[in-house]
Amino acid sequence: MDEKILMDLIERKRYIELKEKLSEMNAVDIAELLNPLEHPITLLIFRMLPKDMAVEVFSYFSSEQQADIINAITDKELKYILDELFFDDMIDLIEEMPANLVNKILANSTHDERKLINQFLKYPADSAGSLMTIEYVELKKEMTVMKALKHIKDIGLSKETVYTCYVTDDNRKLEAIISLRSLVVSDDEIVIKDIMHEDIIYVNTHDDQETVAGIFKKYGFLALPVVDMENRLTGIITVDDIMDVMEQEATEDFQRMAAMSPSEETYLDSSVLTLAKQRIPWLLILMIGGAFTGGIISKFENVLSAVVALTAFIPMLMDTGGNSGSQSSTLIIRGLATGEIALKDIWKVLWKEFRISLIAGTTLAAVNFAKNMLFDKVGVLVSLTVSCTLIVTVMVSKIIGGVLPLLAKRLKLDPAIMAGPLITTIVDTITLMVYFTIASMLMQL
Amino acid sequence: MDEKILMDLIERKRYIELKEKLSEMNAVDIAELLNPLEHPITLLIFRMLPKDMAVEVFSYFSSEQQADIINAITDKELKYILDELFFDDMIDLIEEMPANLVNKILANSTHDERKLINQFLKYPADSAGSLMTIEYVELKKEMTVMKALKHIKDIGLSKETVYTCYVTDDNRKLEAIISLRSLVVSDDEIVIKDIMHEDIIYVNTHDDQETVAGIFKKYGFLALPVVDMENRLTGIITVDDIMDVMEQEATEDFQRMAAMSPSEETYLDSSVLTLAKQRIPWLLILMIGGAFTGGIISKFENVLSAVVALTAFIPMLMDTGGNSGSQSSTLIIRGLATGEIALKDIWKVLWKEFRISLIAGTTLAAVNFAKNMLFDKVGVLVSLTVSCTLIVTVMVSKIIGGVLPLLAKRLKLDPAIMAGPLITTIVDTITLMVYFTIASMLMQL
Repeated sequence: MDEKILMDLIERKRYIELKEKLSEMNAVDIAELLNPLEHPITLLIFRMLPKDMAVEVFSYFSSEQQADIINAITDKELKYILDELFFDDMIDLIEEMPANLVNKILANSTHDERKLINQFLKYPADSAGSLMTIEYVELKKEMTVMKALKHIKDIGLSKETVYTCYVTDDNRKLEAIISLRSLVVSDDEIVIKDIMHEDIIYVNTHDDQETVAGIFKKYGFLALPVVDMENRLTGIITVDDIMDVMEQEATEDFQRMAAMSPSEETYLDSSVLTLAKQRIPWLLILMIGGAFTGGIISKFENVLSAVVALTAFIPMLMDTGGNSGSQSSTLIIRGLATGEIALKDIWKVLWKEFRISLIAGTTLAAVNFAKNMLFDKVGVLVSLTVSCTLIVTVMVSKIIGGVLPLLAKRLKLDPAIMAGPLITTIVDTITLMVYFTIASMLMQL
Repeated sequence: MDEKILMDLIERKRYIELKEKLSEMNAVDIAELLNPLEHPITLLIFRMLPKDMAVEVFSYFSSEQQADIINAITDKELKYILDELFFDDMIDLIEEMPANLVNKILANSTHDERKLINQFLKYPADSAGSLMTIEYVELKKEMTVMKALKHIKDIGLSKETVYTCYVTDDNRKLEAIISLRSLVVSDDEIVIKDIMHEDIIYVNTHDDQETVAGIFKKYGFLALPVVDMENRLTGIITVDDIMDVMEQEATEDFQRMAAMSPSEETYLDSSVLTLAKQRIPWLLILMIGGAFTGGIISKFENVLSAVVALTAFIPMLMDTGGNSGSQSSTLIIRGLATGEIALKDIWKVLWKEFRISLIAGTTLAAVNFAKNMLFDKVGVLVSLTVSCTLIVTVMVSKIIGGVLPLLAKRLKLDPAIMAGPLITTIVDTITLMVYFTIASMLMQL
């Protein structure tokens, strides 16, 4: 069903038909369909949904729409949503809502819920604690398979996942995990102790979300338990939330590598001022860094005025240096992010980039020399100067581009800032110095 | 257990202790532990593992190690591995092995298996068909919950996932899905027809893996059915394989955006020649594109020789233009990749970039003017020329950077090639033309 059909059904008040069509849809698609609609219509349709579906659709709404809905519905309706919402979605909701709506939400929570909400709000952003939810299935090792399955049958619908269950002791310490698959393929009278897995991989509430994403990628888990400092099970993280983290981490790297402060907001939702603030500081820093290149050109003014043809190759040399460095730094930064490259590989990287840059540098220099002689007709000395500079520039850029991200990692900085723009600024300075030095030597200026 | 303990146990022939330690480990970790070891030791440990564990560990080995093992083991051992390996892992294996080992593998397969293997090898790389596996649970709508659970109990261990089951008709057409959760929380005598979901989301064998990843991200599925042209169920794709796809797609975008041909091999595993080939073509294209900038400088030689100070600002202006353009193009390319920005948003992007670039351009121009007057002391006219060029350059670069990726998408090209390096080359030409034109006008040269 698309927006047109929806509006048509509403106008003709064909509510029963509308209800039926909605019931065939996925909650994600309903939320998407309602997204561009005006408030009274959204509320009308929202109230038409079966209660459980309404809560699910609500969890996929944008923050603005969630705020509209909370403003409009009764306390009773709100209480139902809050009760049914998974705890991680509830925490996300509270973090996004304006103060008056947070008050309305807290007023509809019990004392215990408020205590738990406060505890969760304290986990640092981007930590495992901020990603986890509390709706998991807890089993005891003395249970039989039959009893465990009966337990899951009773409470399963209100849990985020039932596919991995957690075995805890009386102090809630995490002892083992058991998959629903193991339960379903085992005979009724088998005791959980005999089929559970005690070699558990888990994370701590304060572990970084990048670490968590790495574990999911490595092992292919559907869910991961989160424990506190005393090894007590406090929550679980499910794979669907980790896919968002992976996408967000990649986006942040893209932004840092293009000389911007990372932002979690989407482009279209960000205001012009926010986007400008994300971009201007780095542009300013890099612009002022350009003073070095200017200084070098001023210093070698006599070389340039003696052989005017040299000026024409400055842009090409700078760009080639920048591009060569970006290629290397991008591969290393990405390799560090995916875990394929580690700090200890620095000598391998150095040796590899040295050989690659020798091949790339001489190829470019040869093509350029031919082009200079055949098309530009600038004479042997200028052609030779430009080509020699190309070899040195490509080699220096690639080695700097390969090593700087590793050094940044070593200094516990984000390797992604050592990307194109910064490398370009560094490489520019070196390129110009090499260029003028070679020119001075070859042409005895 | 680390490598040292492992080698120590082997040397002292403490095989029982070793076996016990291995049995506590995750298959992924065992494969990682064996990865750097020499062939006879790998084989020794491999044969020590329980059979099912051995197959799982085998699936996580590198291609070289898989080849070593296949070379060394008996046909009987190989047959066991092939029987137990999930079909998608088997296809990956065949695609990676040298011809003689492929023959050994095929000789140990049945006629039907060979037919199926041939069919799967024909799916294009990066298609849904190349990602799917055939080990899924098929149910019929007339079954009761009890019968379905009994069926899963009998066959569940050999299926890649049992958490989503597929309801098909007699012609194997996909009719509905049902989650194991629904089965487990339902009463035994309920008929599947009454609790299954008929509003299924599925993909076709030839759909692109990026589309598939998008669906997983949007809906948070654990598995997705794949159908052929006649809507018959042919396989399923599970979420763990999609996480690899997401990472690979992001890596390819990083590579394209840094002017490289994308590669699936990791940096450390690629040969120097492969890496050089990945990088040189784009460096050459962009270097030759630099002829334009050289041409412009040659054309305006008289302006440069009249006011020599102008040359010193060329690098800074070019870099600022390149950086401004990269910022915008990166955000748009990433937005297109994650689905946050669509083609229809082109006017929104244009208007947003116009306003952002006006703010960024004037800020940079103001800071630059102050710096030129106070520190560089180059006179009002040169300072004014540079600052005016900055405003125009930043605005033009951001608008080009914002729009070109969308145009590329429109022309069905990959938006990621419209990133930093290409934008920089285009913007350089414009920047220089603007610079010399403003200089000529202001200084009446």
